[in-house]
Amino acid sequence: MAPPLPDFSDLRAVYVNGSLQYDAADSHTMRLIRRSAGIMRRQGVDVDVVHALDHEIAFGMVTDATEHGRPRDDWPGLQERIMAADILVLGTPIWLGEPSSVTALVIERMYAYSGERNDHGQYLYYGKVGGCIVTGNEDGVKACSKQLLYALQHIGYSIPPQADCGWIGEVGPGASYGDTVEGSDRPVGYDNDFTNRNTTIMTYNLLHLARLLRDAGGFPVGGNVADRWTEVPNAADQDPDPVGP
Amino acid sequence: MAPPLPDFSDLRAVYVNGSLQYDAADSHTMRLIRRSAGIMRRQGVDVDVVHALDHEIAFGMVTDATEHGRPRDDWPGLQERIMAADILVLGTPIWLGEPSSVTALVIERMYAYSGERNDHGQYLYYGKVGGCIVTGNEDGVKACSKQLLYALQHIGYSIPPQADCGWIGEVGPGASYGDTVEGSDRPVGYDNDFTNRNTTIMTYNLLHLARLLRDAGGFPVGGNVADRWTEVPNAADQDPDPVGP
Amino acid sequence: MAPPLPDFSDLRAVYVNGSLQYDAADSHTMRLIRRSAGIMRRQGVDVDVVHALDHEIAFGMVTDATEHGRPRDDWPGLQERIMAADILVLGTPIWLGEPSSVTALVIERMYAYSGERNDHGQYLYYGKVGGCIVTGNEDGVKACSKQLLYALQHIGYSIPPQADCGWIGEVGPGASYGDTVEGSDRPVGYDNDFTNRNTTIMTYNLLHLARLLRDAGGFPVGGNVADRWTEVPNAADQDPDPVGP
Amino acid sequence: MAPPLPDFSDLRAVYVNGSLQYDAADSHTMRLIRRSAGIMRRQGVDVDVVHALDHEIAFGMVTDATEHGRPRDDWPGLQERIMAADILVLGTPIWLGEPSSVTALVIERMYAYSGERNDHGQYLYYGKVGGCIVTGNEDGVKACSKQLLYALQHIGYSIPPQADCGWIGEVGPGASYGDTVEGSDRPVGYDNDFTNRNTTIMTYNLLHLARLLRDAGGFPVGGNVADRWTEVPNAADQDPDPVGP
Repeated sequence: MAPPLPDFSDLRAVYVNGSLQYDAADSHTMRLIRRSAGIMRRQGVDVDVVHALDHEIAFGMVTDATEHGRPRDDWPGLQERIMAADILVLGTPIWLGEPSSVTALVIERMYAYSGERNDHGQYLYYGKVGGCIVTGNEDGVKACSKQLLYALQHIGYSIPPQADCGWIGEVGPGASYGDTVEGSDRPVGYDNDFTNRNTTIMTYNLLHLARLLRDAGGFPVGGNVADRWTEVPNAADQDPDPVGP
Repeated sequence: MAPPLPDFSDLRAVYVNGSLQYDAADSHTMRLIRRSAGIMRRQGVDVDVVHALDHEIAFGMVTDATEHGRPRDDWPGLQERIMAADILVLGTPIWLGEPSSVTALVIERMYAYSGERNDHGQYLYYGKVGGCIVTGNEDGVKACSKQLLYALQHIGYSIPPQADCGWIGEVGPGASYGDTVEGSDRPVGYDNDFTNRNTTIMTYNLLHLARLLRDAGGFPVGGNVADRWTEVPNAADQDPDPVGP
Repeated sequence: MAPPLPDFSDLRAVYVNGSLQYDAADSHTMRLIRRSAGIMRRQGVDVDVVHALDHEIAFGMVTDATEHGRPRDDWPGLQERIMAADILVLGTPIWLGEPSSVTALVIERMYAYSGERNDHGQYLYYGKVGGCIVTGNEDGVKACSKQLLYALQHIGYSIPPQADCGWIGEVGPGASYGDTVEGSDRPVGYDNDFTNRNTTIMTYNLLHLARLLRDAGGFPVGGNVADRWTEVPNAADQDPDPVGP
Repeated sequence: MAPPLPDFSDLRAVYVNGSLQYDAADSHTMRLIRRSAGIMRRQGVDVDVVHALDHEIAFGMVTDATEHGRPRDDWPGLQERIMAADILVLGTPIWLGEPSSVTALVIERMYAYSGERNDHGQYLYYGKVGGCIVTGNEDGVKACSKQLLYALQHIGYSIPPQADCGWIGEVGPGASYGDTVEGSDRPVGYDNDFTNRNTTIMTYNLLHLARLLRDAGGFPVGGNVADRWTEVPNAADQDPDPVGP
């Protein structure tokens, strides 16, 4: 028998949906987000869900665009919600095989804070855990996940195993996740075992790794403080050259 | 002051170099691998380095190609070396912006084992930690890293923050990592602070996360056993539909 | 001696810059765009340059967002400028190895028209020619070009050889294209032969292919009319199965 | 009524299948290749099909590995077959969202010739036309196509509109193209209209563009001869700087 699950109830998670639908109720990606978020809530996790297009987010590699001449920028408030969470899950629809522009915008704005440091002097997002949810009707879950998970680990997130999940149908345009189609009384994708299994596994893996890092007091410090990497045995000290003949 | 580094000396790491050079001494990527491996050795880690083209690896999504009619297949022995290690670092050169064919071959062969399970019933590679090293002369470190880190997490590896490092020069063909060029008495890239810093940070982050997972007895079990995901609150149980009007 | 260049003076080109800078004068990508556009103007081509952030473009997979409840959407006017041109060049900065969100937005809006047809019944953009210009300070010209060129050919553009160009510096953050740095009296990248050569070649190749297609009356018709593909010998008619034993 | 199709019967095409199956009869990708090739043959085109794993191709960025110490290298013969054709279609299966290692190997070996020039002094592959065919059971047609089409255009191929086609099933592992499954008397994917339409359109678009380029005596010369780009108005001559205040 599997060991009992750890207590996750002190953890916080935020989902950010990069849907191109201004109304969250129209987003297919939001449906799968709700399934992952539902598991977290069942585990007592404090879950926050951001529908990016409910907000007016400025473009630009800045932390607050109102300081750079824009009349409005809702990003700083969203950044606080992201910083308050142990876990971040990015959700995106697929268009032409890529994540949405809204998702790209979210990543850019998070990246603009990457010059900041956490309490240990590590990059800002160290100690947090990331995953992604991708839906479309045709192709591209892996291609989008590659981009999203890469961006998250690059700015400091840790990525547990199988940290992506999603749904697409057979090649070609067609129904999206949760659409109802003639001849079936169940919305498309809702009963797909592969999607449900991977969504479940991703969700628990995010919780497990967040638990480990929270209990460790964040991502362990040593050799990974940006401005102090020369204080430990480091790459510049090591001999790169092959042994000669 | 930073806390003292944990003891990493019971850990094992394997580097697999997907260079297109049959002779490891000709591989530029091997030079940067040696720098990361050097740090690990300084920390007492047992380090194994595989130069893939020293071996004759068969093509195919099989665990042992000699059971499928091929006269020779060195992969099963390499798989044992990968399985013996807590940490895997894939090294690749960049060609046309992509990882090498040899690297793709290594990933395919590892993926062919993905139907197997570890002692906890999780996917085979759960509990291990992965990173990558990418070198080229022109462009593509991030594009290659995206592919390699995605593949590793997809089959069960955990990915710490900033798990990739590499070197490229200014756009266009030119010298590769470690080449000597006229007008400089130092090989190209050896003194690049960005590369040395990221290589250092990646190496320590791999060690830290491997330490955490080793001490936890592997990646925590629960909700992530492939064939038992329905025994926990799971995605299929959660309501995906938005609250109605 | 090379043959004289054809007369290109009846052609029209549009460049769309997906910079994250609201002020076009701050865009590094715009500098390289100006070099390609300058060649076209020297050949008598009618050149239009769009700085996307000069406009308020709505999100969404729609042709005109004001018909879907948005208060403003400048896209339809931009779409007209794109449709008026034989040649489209997308320009983008690189962030985290990807094209900008603004560029993604431009592609999404163009894609939203892909249900429309041209005068021959082909997809809307058939007969047009596409390329891209990518600048950053660190890495990702090829990764971005892959996405942009793929998107363009997918919706109907023809792609000539070497249809991308760009500039990045040595790995790591640093100066961007056109920045002035201490110790040099020439802006960064301006004298890079690789960038200047590829920009030149891309520009002429776009012109040559646009010339051929204009003279042919558009992309030749036959077997490529979306709704009439079954009227010619087609894939469904062909035997996919290998000859049996 | 559509105009009659041009006469394509003087054209030559080569398909290169990067399947991981040593026996071509086991390749699912080969089934879709056969459908595209069948259309070409119906148009009188001389079609050559290479199953890469029928050959022993050495690794390495060299034109002939036997000149670099390898005991055998079948590539030079394959390169001749590629050079004999106006049209190249690369076929690949998808593994972990990427093209196969064999396909990567084929591209590397073609790229190794990129220092050579054609009769006009242009890069070697100028005047030729390229496309791709991708099959898998789960996800990644677009991601693979991006890589393959980018590589082809980068080394000199021209890419017509919609130059990729493929088949995948609903998300998750499952049947591959041409597999027979219980409950259906038709092999999987054979009747997929989207796949058949796109395969048809790709095939005709390759023929049309090859026809245009053959009739033009190759890709037009001017501004695109690698070593003579400074003889025309070029990028280095153009002012990159925005008009000042």
